[in-house]
Amino acid sequence: MLQKIDLNADLGESYGPWSMGDDAAMLKIVTSANIACGGHASDPETMFETLVCARENGVCVGAHPGYLDPMGFGRRVIPMAPAEIGRMVAAQVGALQAMAKLADVPVRYVKAHGALANHAASDAEAAAGYIEAVMRIDPSLIILAISGTQLEHVARKMGAPCVAEIFADRGYLPNGQLVPRDQPSAMIEDPEVAAERLLGFLETGRMPTVGGDAIALDAASICVHGDSPGAVAMAQVLRARLTDAGVILAAFAG
Amino acid sequence: MLQKIDLNADLGESYGPWSMGDDAAMLKIVTSANIACGGHASDPETMFETLVCARENGVCVGAHPGYLDPMGFGRRVIPMAPAEIGRMVAAQVGALQAMAKLADVPVRYVKAHGALANHAASDAEAAAGYIEAVMRIDPSLIILAISGTQLEHVARKMGAPCVAEIFADRGYLPNGQLVPRDQPSAMIEDPEVAAERLLGFLETGRMPTVGGDAIALDAASICVHGDSPGAVAMAQVLRARLTDAGVILAAFAG
Amino acid sequence: MLQKIDLNADLGESYGPWSMGDDAAMLKIVTSANIACGGHASDPETMFETLVCARENGVCVGAHPGYLDPMGFGRRVIPMAPAEIGRMVAAQVGALQAMAKLADVPVRYVKAHGALANHAASDAEAAAGYIEAVMRIDPSLIILAISGTQLEHVARKMGAPCVAEIFADRGYLPNGQLVPRDQPSAMIEDPEVAAERLLGFLETGRMPTVGGDAIALDAASICVHGDSPGAVAMAQVLRARLTDAGVILAAFAG
Amino acid sequence: MLQKIDLNADLGESYGPWSMGDDAAMLKIVTSANIACGGHASDPETMFETLVCARENGVCVGAHPGYLDPMGFGRRVIPMAPAEIGRMVAAQVGALQAMAKLADVPVRYVKAHGALANHAASDAEAAAGYIEAVMRIDPSLIILAISGTQLEHVARKMGAPCVAEIFADRGYLPNGQLVPRDQPSAMIEDPEVAAERLLGFLETGRMPTVGGDAIALDAASICVHGDSPGAVAMAQVLRARLTDAGVILAAFAG
Repeated sequence: MLQKIDLNADLGESYGPWSMGDDAAMLKIVTSANIACGGHASDPETMFETLVCARENGVCVGAHPGYLDPMGFGRRVIPMAPAEIGRMVAAQVGALQAMAKLADVPVRYVKAHGALANHAASDAEAAAGYIEAVMRIDPSLIILAISGTQLEHVARKMGAPCVAEIFADRGYLPNGQLVPRDQPSAMIEDPEVAAERLLGFLETGRMPTVGGDAIALDAASICVHGDSPGAVAMAQVLRARLTDAGVILAAFAG
Repeated sequence: MLQKIDLNADLGESYGPWSMGDDAAMLKIVTSANIACGGHASDPETMFETLVCARENGVCVGAHPGYLDPMGFGRRVIPMAPAEIGRMVAAQVGALQAMAKLADVPVRYVKAHGALANHAASDAEAAAGYIEAVMRIDPSLIILAISGTQLEHVARKMGAPCVAEIFADRGYLPNGQLVPRDQPSAMIEDPEVAAERLLGFLETGRMPTVGGDAIALDAASICVHGDSPGAVAMAQVLRARLTDAGVILAAFAG
Repeated sequence: MLQKIDLNADLGESYGPWSMGDDAAMLKIVTSANIACGGHASDPETMFETLVCARENGVCVGAHPGYLDPMGFGRRVIPMAPAEIGRMVAAQVGALQAMAKLADVPVRYVKAHGALANHAASDAEAAAGYIEAVMRIDPSLIILAISGTQLEHVARKMGAPCVAEIFADRGYLPNGQLVPRDQPSAMIEDPEVAAERLLGFLETGRMPTVGGDAIALDAASICVHGDSPGAVAMAQVLRARLTDAGVILAAFAG
Repeated sequence: MLQKIDLNADLGESYGPWSMGDDAAMLKIVTSANIACGGHASDPETMFETLVCARENGVCVGAHPGYLDPMGFGRRVIPMAPAEIGRMVAAQVGALQAMAKLADVPVRYVKAHGALANHAASDAEAAAGYIEAVMRIDPSLIILAISGTQLEHVARKMGAPCVAEIFADRGYLPNGQLVPRDQPSAMIEDPEVAAERLLGFLETGRMPTVGGDAIALDAASICVHGDSPGAVAMAQVLRARLTDAGVILAAFAG
């Protein structure tokens, strides 16, 4: 059985006067914080506050770049060439790195947001553009990728450090992809059910699927949502159940 | 007589489909390029292209942060606290640093743009917020400051590496400040006149003023404009006259 | 005693994925809704939803333009000439008017937001630029102005329809201006106290001041806040106390 | 032979400090101006200046909405539902209408820009969302559509006033669609050739195609480009050749 796992969440997604989620509460639960970089969300003040709060809670920090589309929260694909994606990502990662120097905390990994994550998960060229940019900025930055995606495969092929994640509250298809959000079984809403699934995964390395056998997945991190209603309660239950079962929660980049 | 001086210009100020100035021509003339960082102007594509072109021409690169106000081109003061200024500057400098890693060229200095430069020139607290952020990002980054300003004084007091600049095409008042743009004698439009003034400065360390004696100024760099009509012609004449007089044009951070 | 008064609030200030305040609750309480127009806040989806909800609740609609500065929520003065202010306001009012045609509800008035409201309250030229633009768009649009300000005076001088407002939850100085937010007595936090003050005003036409006599104010509308914590509770108590006292709450433009 | 035709061009596409094209020259040539509305380009100052210049030259004015993506100049499809497209278009058309009241010139038609035009040309539901919004704003606004597209068909079916256009400088395929920009024959670069094709069209109602017979097209307007190098020269030659041939150039909405 896996003795140790990371819990990550998307944080720092406020924007100017508008706040999103309860970052202070989430930063007491998770072990890694994916912090928005001014692309799909965030601004210098939000980045700084989130970075300081992560450091104070001993939470590991990653950059969370997304399409430059705050109106659509980075959930709409903006057509861009792979090299353009790389440059867009570089500007955002660099912005967070500099803010992190002000906040005195290192940036250890990069995780793509929303439509950018989906695009890099399925398009090998986009994934390569993204990974190459991250490697050029700092070859020790870890690519945090959804388990089984093109992003994970290409990162491993390119020799980039890579860690895979699974989702705590999403249903899986027999092919390892997530059940689309517009279908029933897309979301696991009961924290106890989500905890059971994760404990099963940690024991067997397999996740249940909708309409098929459990599927083997490789993952060193579990993604929990930070901004939905009930996000904090879900994350708290997961943390408690995992800890009760003797699992050590610790940053993968710790 | 000063044997060596730097020529700097604001470049990389295009934005999406809109271009500004003739960066390719200017990068054959200047020795240091102040490259916009996505605040008052620029975007990842523009930053990257300008950085590559600077590297290919052997031009030294600096970050050129400004107020996050492309509509006003960073020429309007946006009220912000000193620490907020520092964080805004950090995000922009960081973005350019990461782009510079993609373009394989180092960022050696930071020069503020427009209203931010004016504010940091006259307000010691704003200057300190700005300098502290730059020092935390990388203490070897040089502050390029208008000669005789609060920014220069505070940088020297804080122990930040600092280089002062004078303007090739602006008139000076007896107190060392620039003649405001809405007054006659604000702009030197004849390149030969501008060249004469600069050669005089290099010989004597003093610049002529409007309605007073020549004033002693300390400077290791000359700022030429990159975006006005006639900018390229002015810069070409200045370069030729200085070179003809035996002055070596070289980056201050070279 | 004044038998009838309007209650207005700033609404429709969400932005893309970020929500602000509880518009649905506020639209059951107020009689006039100042709806943001995409300047300091809002976007087409937010404008449309807020307009539809206003129409469904029989709430009168006004445009609420502000500086084009969502990051600063329109609370920072952006230096602009009076005619530029007029053009910025026109684009925003026009956007809301068109959205209002989609939502089948008329736009009856215009109220400036934040730093734009403060600037137009104290600068007669800015006020004139603002009012002239509104009059050209539609001379029947009412200017909703803070009682006693330059905006009110200039509107009346220019012959623009104008209605004055007082604040339910702000302290007043003996000169009729608001107590600055950084001073004690700036905010009235107890809804019962606020209700008492308003009932006194309706009876006598005078508001208490801090450190002086009550001051005579002219107003046909009361501004309640829509986005602060406790905003809904404050507005509910005010509505109840006014109604209990026999005051009819109705839109000034009804 | 067609005795009368309109010449339209996309204008008012500057943004803040960045200018695009030579609007003053183009407004002496064309009879209808598609003016950007702050979506893919433009801002209140640019809209106002362009509107005033159009009025002074007796040029008819249309709104030219596009995706809210200045970085991509509205040339990238942003995924949006048909009703969202309608609301985005409404906010932009309304903004231009209000600016047009300031400039004292009527807005007579609406023409979509870039990727929005392409999307509405091929997707009937997107076209319907777009048209319905325009009709609700003002049922007398004319839809200017590329000849033979879904936008034209749906507009006629919905009873919206509609005018079709052809392109002066683009090659056509036998099915009536434009030759994609990445293929040879996409662009007609010789103004004399473009003029010949247009005169042929005016005489016969048919345009030559690449690799096929000439195709019958219905059009009351010719689109010339406003922002490419050589745009003014191309437009001048076309105007001269058409006028020399006795064709009257006049706005379709005149």
